[in-house]
Amino acid sequence: VKIEILNTGSELLLGRVLNTHQQWLCRQLADLGYVVGRQVAVPDTALDIVTTVKEALNRSDLVIATGGLGPTSDDRTRDLVAEMLGRKLSLDPSIVEKICGYFEKRRRPLPPGTEIQAMVPEGAVVLANDFGTAPGLAIQVEAGRFRAAASWLIMLPGPPRELRPMFTSRVIPLLRQEFPLNDEFVCRTLKTTGIGESWAEEKIAGPLRHLTDAGLELGYCARPGEVDVRFVATGPAGRHQVEEAEGVVRGLIGSHIYGTDDDQLEQVVVQLLSKQRKTVAFAESCTGGFIANRLTNVSGASEVFLAGLVTYSNEAKEKFLGVQASTLTTHGAVSEPTAREMAQGAREHTGADFALSVTGIAGPTGGTAEKPVGTVFIGLATPEGTRVKKMSNAFDRETFKYVTSQQALEMLRQALLPPGT
Amino acid sequence: VKIEILNTGSELLLGRVLNTHQQWLCRQLADLGYVVGRQVAVPDTALDIVTTVKEALNRSDLVIATGGLGPTSDDRTRDLVAEMLGRKLSLDPSIVEKICGYFEKRRRPLPPGTEIQAMVPEGAVVLANDFGTAPGLAIQVEAGRFRAAASWLIMLPGPPRELRPMFTSRVIPLLRQEFPLNDEFVCRTLKTTGIGESWAEEKIAGPLRHLTDAGLELGYCARPGEVDVRFVATGPAGRHQVEEAEGVVRGLIGSHIYGTDDDQLEQVVVQLLSKQRKTVAFAESCTGGFIANRLTNVSGASEVFLAGLVTYSNEAKEKFLGVQASTLTTHGAVSEPTAREMAQGAREHTGADFALSVTGIAGPTGGTAEKPVGTVFIGLATPEGTRVKKMSNAFDRETFKYVTSQQALEMLRQALLPPGT
Repeated sequence: VKIEILNTGSELLLGRVLNTHQQWLCRQLADLGYVVGRQVAVPDTALDIVTTVKEALNRSDLVIATGGLGPTSDDRTRDLVAEMLGRKLSLDPSIVEKICGYFEKRRRPLPPGTEIQAMVPEGAVVLANDFGTAPGLAIQVEAGRFRAAASWLIMLPGPPRELRPMFTSRVIPLLRQEFPLNDEFVCRTLKTTGIGESWAEEKIAGPLRHLTDAGLELGYCARPGEVDVRFVATGPAGRHQVEEAEGVVRGLIGSHIYGTDDDQLEQVVVQLLSKQRKTVAFAESCTGGFIANRLTNVSGASEVFLAGLVTYSNEAKEKFLGVQASTLTTHGAVSEPTAREMAQGAREHTGADFALSVTGIAGPTGGTAEKPVGTVFIGLATPEGTRVKKMSNAFDRETFKYVTSQQALEMLRQALLPPGT
Repeated sequence: VKIEILNTGSELLLGRVLNTHQQWLCRQLADLGYVVGRQVAVPDTALDIVTTVKEALNRSDLVIATGGLGPTSDDRTRDLVAEMLGRKLSLDPSIVEKICGYFEKRRRPLPPGTEIQAMVPEGAVVLANDFGTAPGLAIQVEAGRFRAAASWLIMLPGPPRELRPMFTSRVIPLLRQEFPLNDEFVCRTLKTTGIGESWAEEKIAGPLRHLTDAGLELGYCARPGEVDVRFVATGPAGRHQVEEAEGVVRGLIGSHIYGTDDDQLEQVVVQLLSKQRKTVAFAESCTGGFIANRLTNVSGASEVFLAGLVTYSNEAKEKFLGVQASTLTTHGAVSEPTAREMAQGAREHTGADFALSVTGIAGPTGGTAEKPVGTVFIGLATPEGTRVKKMSNAFDRETFKYVTSQQALEMLRQALLPPGT
């Protein structure tokens, strides 16, 4: 199946907004076994839209277009496509009713332009919008119009909170029906942290050779602070190949695997704490609240997270965590003893079962010969005692925070694993 | 000037990485007065790269391609382009020397494949890489090869920390030389928060009519928690038009404008505090450390930021902020009196001049009929007293945090403005 994504919107080409549709749609499709062959973004002028939709329908079996379905004057995709395909537009009263209900529920007046969003090209499948006003549209373009074979054009609204649920609940069933995959397709991602890409490859590529020789696709994706190991297999033996590969990799580097597919480290940590009915607190200096922020992005974090103390100043470290003034004077705020006292202090002052502490030099300034930018001490206080790790994370400020938070959360995850795993 | 961006990399089409090049390059170019007409992403197979480079060179005066210049087997852009254009590749010893120096400085062994990155197509301009190994390349494609006119093909390395400085220091001077803009181009963005797009438009569109009629381009870009107002003008009167427009808009909605162009609200707040030698502390509940995290993304925040207390549990609110147990029992953790005591407590316990507090229901669960999901109280304690605002931010969890942090930081910014502005 040849698939192409077309993102319309002048704001994309002016760099005013980030195109997150590309990654999200490509990822969803790849995990289902469909591969996108090309992605194109154009401004929302009539000529650009018509030209690129035609080109895409010429090349591909499926074209997914985003944007341009709303009520304002620059939302032109619906009209232009209907005209290009010679399909009459007619008003669908059930869509009007749905949009009126949407605004009534929110006690907001009906804005102008509502009816435009209820116009449906002849023969189009309406994809209901459960989180906004403009519905999506799916049109099967007849064989012979642009190329010998028929093709599908699916138009989705621009806002991610509308597009994503619509894709999941309306587009995926349509794809499975119209483009059934001949081969069984199995995809699995193992999410690791604390290891590098080349280290992972060295450990696992050899032992997986018999499977990759037999057709298993093995891929790596490295980002600061994490490496994904990804298996893809097709055909009747696919599921077994992927299961075997996962078993081999878990046997070799299992302790570094924190989850699979869409798992996030903060979710895994909340789940482990929750299952064990344990609580956690943080004492952050250079990460500035980033670790607390990540954990509290997980719904349900309030069951396990008591408090985060972002002690930027030395006075705050003394007052809220009980760090000794003499420790700060003798060893400095960025030191093993300070990290230790911060973790212990956070655990004692909050009453949490576990406490993580972080103190370091995020940069770009503040480094010394002895403690260069990127130096960071991570402490973990547990019911069994306290330990501190020294790491060297010389990155820009935001990457520094992310990588350090991965290391800290991983340290906590390791402490939460049942003995012997 | 017709410009096209071509992003190569199979990981883009598999959705494993987010394409941040598009927004960054488009934004840089737009602010210089160049507009990108199309952006395309393709996998790094030979056929895809050759086809799309040819198509782009057919259509455009300038093609900027990213990725595929590194040392591994899937980095094929350099070779494919040289072959396609009939240009011989030859080794540039000065690049080899530079790459060797790069690894020596980092005390890392020279990895295999280094020499591939030093191969330069005949007639290409080498764009030195100050933050990595593979240099960029700029090639003027002769008139008549793909289309009547000549065009430029610029190839940049994939990693953002290499691409961005290379673009700024090497590509922009080349663009200014090869594609001088006939008209003077002036662009200005006013960054606002606390107002909606349609409200802004209603206030300013009329009073700016004489300027937009005279050719000034007026645009809005709304994201949750902020609205950009953007002016673009060309020609000899351009600078004056933009200045006049800025004056008009500042006169009408100036109190909501926190900065211009690339300013961020957290930077502005740090600058204001720093200039007035004042300090700040935060008491966060539902935002979970997000506000502290934003502020500490600003280099220099340590001069003004004392501590952030992420008091998720009621016990933490009592212990670290001195919130009365009776307040929590009588009014609840999400209430005006709790927000007030949190802000006052944070100010007193840390000794900061200002303290912000946030308590609310981020959702998706936890709402009631009286306090639905999205309800949030924001408190600000100053030397003059304490006040609390109630807001209703019914969004997904991460958007909730962002919008709430904008409101809180804006409340602080307003308090820091000199009287009479």
